[in-house]
Amino acid sequence: MERTTITWVDGHVETIDQTMLPELRLLRLSTVDELVDAIKRLVIRGAPLLGAAGALGVALAAAVSERSGYDAERVRRDAELIASARPTAVNLRWGVEQVLPLVDEGADAVLLAALDLAAADVTANKALGRRGADFLREQLGDRPLALHTHCNAGALACVGWGTALGVVRSLQEDGLVRMVFADETRPLFQGSRITATELAELGLPHRVVVDGAGAGLIARGMVDAVIVGADRIAANGDVANKVGTYPLALAAARAGIPFVVAAPESTVDAATPEGSSIEIEERDPEEVLVVGGTRMAPSGTGAVNPAFDVTPADLVTAIVTERRVIRPAQGERAS
Amino acid sequence: MERTTITWVDGHVETIDQTMLPELRLLRLSTVDELVDAIKRLVIRGAPLLGAAGALGVALAAAVSERSGYDAERVRRDAELIASARPTAVNLRWGVEQVLPLVDEGADAVLLAALDLAAADVTANKALGRRGADFLREQLGDRPLALHTHCNAGALACVGWGTALGVVRSLQEDGLVRMVFADETRPLFQGSRITATELAELGLPHRVVVDGAGAGLIARGMVDAVIVGADRIAANGDVANKVGTYPLALAAARAGIPFVVAAPESTVDAATPEGSSIEIEERDPEEVLVVGGTRMAPSGTGAVNPAFDVTPADLVTAIVTERRVIRPAQGERAS
Repeated sequence: MERTTITWVDGHVETIDQTMLPELRLLRLSTVDELVDAIKRLVIRGAPLLGAAGALGVALAAAVSERSGYDAERVRRDAELIASARPTAVNLRWGVEQVLPLVDEGADAVLLAALDLAAADVTANKALGRRGADFLREQLGDRPLALHTHCNAGALACVGWGTALGVVRSLQEDGLVRMVFADETRPLFQGSRITATELAELGLPHRVVVDGAGAGLIARGMVDAVIVGADRIAANGDVANKVGTYPLALAAARAGIPFVVAAPESTVDAATPEGSSIEIEERDPEEVLVVGGTRMAPSGTGAVNPAFDVTPADLVTAIVTERRVIRPAQGERAS
Repeated sequence: MERTTITWVDGHVETIDQTMLPELRLLRLSTVDELVDAIKRLVIRGAPLLGAAGALGVALAAAVSERSGYDAERVRRDAELIASARPTAVNLRWGVEQVLPLVDEGADAVLLAALDLAAADVTANKALGRRGADFLREQLGDRPLALHTHCNAGALACVGWGTALGVVRSLQEDGLVRMVFADETRPLFQGSRITATELAELGLPHRVVVDGAGAGLIARGMVDAVIVGADRIAANGDVANKVGTYPLALAAARAGIPFVVAAPESTVDAATPEGSSIEIEERDPEEVLVVGGTRMAPSGTGAVNPAFDVTPADLVTAIVTERRVIRPAQGERAS
């Protein structure tokens, strides 16, 4: 389980093709085009991992450029291509921008900074995981908990360890996890394919449910807390995360159970005042309409396929980062 | 479009295999076992259609029995098998019970009553469709509406015309439908496969969305009203419907748009005081875990697969039947 999801090997970015999971297929990315394509196709996905991919992407652009006489301007143009590959997750652009000031210093300097950033992701996740676990124990008492999560915010969404699943892992260390419900997460099944794989490897009791079932399970008292990751957190505490998160927050609020967002500080975007200013990525309708090679709907039917939704701050019990616990539902701002 | 979903042909029950849609495959059921199996596998589905299937099922039992010397006791035992094939939709047992008093009068009497019941379903749907359309025009004004529906409550869920889609069709007659969003409805894709097929045949502008996306579309102001069917309505106005309905009701309430349930009176169960007394059918986990022949989750992973959820009365703006409009959110009881 302690594999690293993204690494630098011999002048290339090496990662796992997350569209193929649960089958584990390693992928070597040698050009910026390959990297951008991998980000767009969700071969590389998960907000914290996108941060590391952004930084290592600039390192890749620099390394490639170096082979034909280093061109800092060219590297900066490539960096912008990477940063804008997906619009909603702020971590991607953040990762790019962290290493951008080093571009003038050459490829080695960029790579060193990118590797530092990647290593820091694991450290941050372990810290926020522990803080989130302590928060839930404080809120719910020291009893075995049933947790509900959506999409994948585990080690595979990060360089390692995980954010939402990082909290679950800290609770597991405390012996306080009795069940994890994982939404399958249509259209791309990150819950069934990726989260369930991680939970199985961790030896955690878990069940997959269809996305429509989460709210009902919560209403029936089967869930003690909802714990999810985030792709962008607005200054006011509104949270953009994988589509299907918001209904869980509505159900949690009605049931009076905590709705907790676990994310590194890099997910907080001070430049985004509130959720309504977040651009929601609209993806290919075919992701919805064609399932396992079979077209489900009649041929003339289209789809709307937003990748994210926004959970308003008043439904967010807590945002837990590596540095702090923010309580948006009590009026605390993220920035 | 004016096909009838279930009919009596030459001593058999003829229906459409709804697991094969959008491919149209007719199915002839010649024994009670075949009928019960078809109900359990959702070959026959949709609460109003299950009512007709229950009644015609007893007619089938009587017809079969008649061929080897009529045995009323045997027919009654078969009727109980049919009535208990699925636990949540009250219409199935209701349909059986409507014709049960005629069993002593022989197979012809049962069949006549069952055919009457089936014909009455279409009449009831047209009446409730018009009443629902008028209610929405009254609530929202005479403007083109974007409607959101879940699962399939169209002609194919009924003997004909449809309940929720019956309302949509009446609005279409009025020229007031600008868009219908249909949740795909995991795990069995009734939205993509069946509702989208009906909407396409009706020439209605429509888009499929994943189940997790509905709440977000509503929050973004893209939807004017939610309109769904029901599998059982408790006396207090709580509504059991396909899993994934409840989160739409939560989102509609928060957005201040109407959440309307369209169902025949036979769906109101006076014997069920409230939602918590409704048995929620738990179906095979494989429906969730295996998609189009491919196992999505790792082999050791299980699933929870409730077929329904319960929307509490206070979130239900209106229940529209062929006889009345009930306003549970304003404290009106269904029975």
